[in-house]
Amino acid sequence: MLIEINEAAEFLKANDNYLIIAHQNPDGDTLGSAFSLCHVLRGLGKKANVACEEGFPQRYIHMWDGYSDMDFVCENVVAVDIADIGLLGKKYAHLASDVKLCIDHHISNTDYAQRTLLDSGASAASEVLYEVYMAMGVTLDKHAAECVYTGIATDTGCFRYGNTTERCHEIAAELFKAGADFLMINRRMFEIKSRARISAEGLVMRNMEFYFDGKCSVICLTKQIMDEFHTSENEFDGLASLTVQPEGVLIGITIKERGENLYKLSLRSASSIDVSALCSRMGGGGHRAAAGCTLTGTLEEVKQQILAVIGEAVG
Amino acid sequence: MLIEINEAAEFLKANDNYLIIAHQNPDGDTLGSAFSLCHVLRGLGKKANVACEEGFPQRYIHMWDGYSDMDFVCENVVAVDIADIGLLGKKYAHLASDVKLCIDHHISNTDYAQRTLLDSGASAASEVLYEVYMAMGVTLDKHAAECVYTGIATDTGCFRYGNTTERCHEIAAELFKAGADFLMINRRMFEIKSRARISAEGLVMRNMEFYFDGKCSVICLTKQIMDEFHTSENEFDGLASLTVQPEGVLIGITIKERGENLYKLSLRSASSIDVSALCSRMGGGGHRAAAGCTLTGTLEEVKQQILAVIGEAVG
Repeated sequence: MLIEINEAAEFLKANDNYLIIAHQNPDGDTLGSAFSLCHVLRGLGKKANVACEEGFPQRYIHMWDGYSDMDFVCENVVAVDIADIGLLGKKYAHLASDVKLCIDHHISNTDYAQRTLLDSGASAASEVLYEVYMAMGVTLDKHAAECVYTGIATDTGCFRYGNTTERCHEIAAELFKAGADFLMINRRMFEIKSRARISAEGLVMRNMEFYFDGKCSVICLTKQIMDEFHTSENEFDGLASLTVQPEGVLIGITIKERGENLYKLSLRSASSIDVSALCSRMGGGGHRAAAGCTLTGTLEEVKQQILAVIGEAVG
Repeated sequence: MLIEINEAAEFLKANDNYLIIAHQNPDGDTLGSAFSLCHVLRGLGKKANVACEEGFPQRYIHMWDGYSDMDFVCENVVAVDIADIGLLGKKYAHLASDVKLCIDHHISNTDYAQRTLLDSGASAASEVLYEVYMAMGVTLDKHAAECVYTGIATDTGCFRYGNTTERCHEIAAELFKAGADFLMINRRMFEIKSRARISAEGLVMRNMEFYFDGKCSVICLTKQIMDEFHTSENEFDGLASLTVQPEGVLIGITIKERGENLYKLSLRSASSIDVSALCSRMGGGGHRAAAGCTLTGTLEEVKQQILAVIGEAVG
């Protein structure tokens, strides 16, 4: 059932004992949503924990440093930035039918929760949560502001992508006022890379392939490359955005090897082409300018599968 | 003489026949300042032209497309984003003593003009100009908003660097309201790179050197590399920011070959170290986190000169 901001605010104020779930392969937005909500609820004297299939990556330690689980019996499961129950992860799949509230910004949200607050015009789930906090009458402290900032900044590529709105900048100004250390966050999210990543990224970029008169670029992050440089996939945050750098590229494809004949594809659009629509045809989804899907087969087969779909759009 | 925002606004409203000078080797901020001011003044029925040593680079065509010089006798020279008369360029050096108004944000501004509006806390000269337009009671149209946005976005690395303030985000929200096509600007300023640049950049990055336990990184863009990939220095906008990507780097140095035994150095700080102070010791200047200087000697000599100064700061 779709609900409004005020209803979500009322629900959160009226209840207690929350388990807030972030999606698997967590990113800055799902964690920014989850940790800001947990912090806000605890600040109101309520019990709340954050859960995530893989735990909390080191990269986002500024949000979870000092966090520890509280001891209570969960009464209300809240899913943040989770468009589909498949993204709850194996560990929390059993809670799928028990999600009391979902707060999200994915147009592809399947409305699986008992209550869904969905704003597909919002840049990030963290932006939707910010509106909920305002409706709750909460004043954000530095930590909550940093979590919300992380979510909005990471999902907009630091106010760079097409999902950035006037509202994003208005909220950012408010988060600065609340004392968010935006420089530390920007540096961690958008600047610092391990030397191993820089080397591996250089190799991946040198091997970039172009199709359809340069309108489509393809890069591959194989296990072999990750092994060679002793890195893992979670060090390659933001890699996909590099595919649309070359002049003339309309769609950029990043293929990451996930397992035996298993590849995760990330598509980026640098034009009006909706890559979310292309990915849904392959069983994936996402946003207009950034979407993904998972394909099986050899690297070459996977490449041909996606290029066939791309060809119809740009060919 | 230092003046306030209102005085600058009054001066611009009270006079006419302006020549607005952008600094040599123009960037997004000086051109954003110059073209927004020219557009605003012309919108008020005044005569105004923009001048720049090298003309207007193709990269910034969204600001000067459709612009042409008006025919009039110049009465008022205005310098924007120009800290020192040396940056007027050879062509306009003769106007040095005749600058009626300078609008700037460089703390190193030498107060050479008859009137100087200086806000060293502003992210960009374009931000200072925005405040002047507000004081003039001007409503910015789409084009003026896009020029101001370009200036603020380029000088803050798209709201990423430490000079970003609450005010930047507030102004950005207003510029969005005015209809600025921020996506086109962000894509041109921060995303699109020529394939030649991507290849050359890859090579430059592979040759990155580290000093002082990895606290200092050095990259060199030599004429040989530019020639090899058929590129020129003006295609390498933003290159310097890559030097502070590797984990642990506090100061990043970019050395660009400008001529026979002549090198332009750009320093970036990823810590509290003030690189502007280091550069002024070498005859240069800039901002705390981004500064530059020009050195002579062989590449190796130039490197040793700057490393000696850096060593005192990070060694």
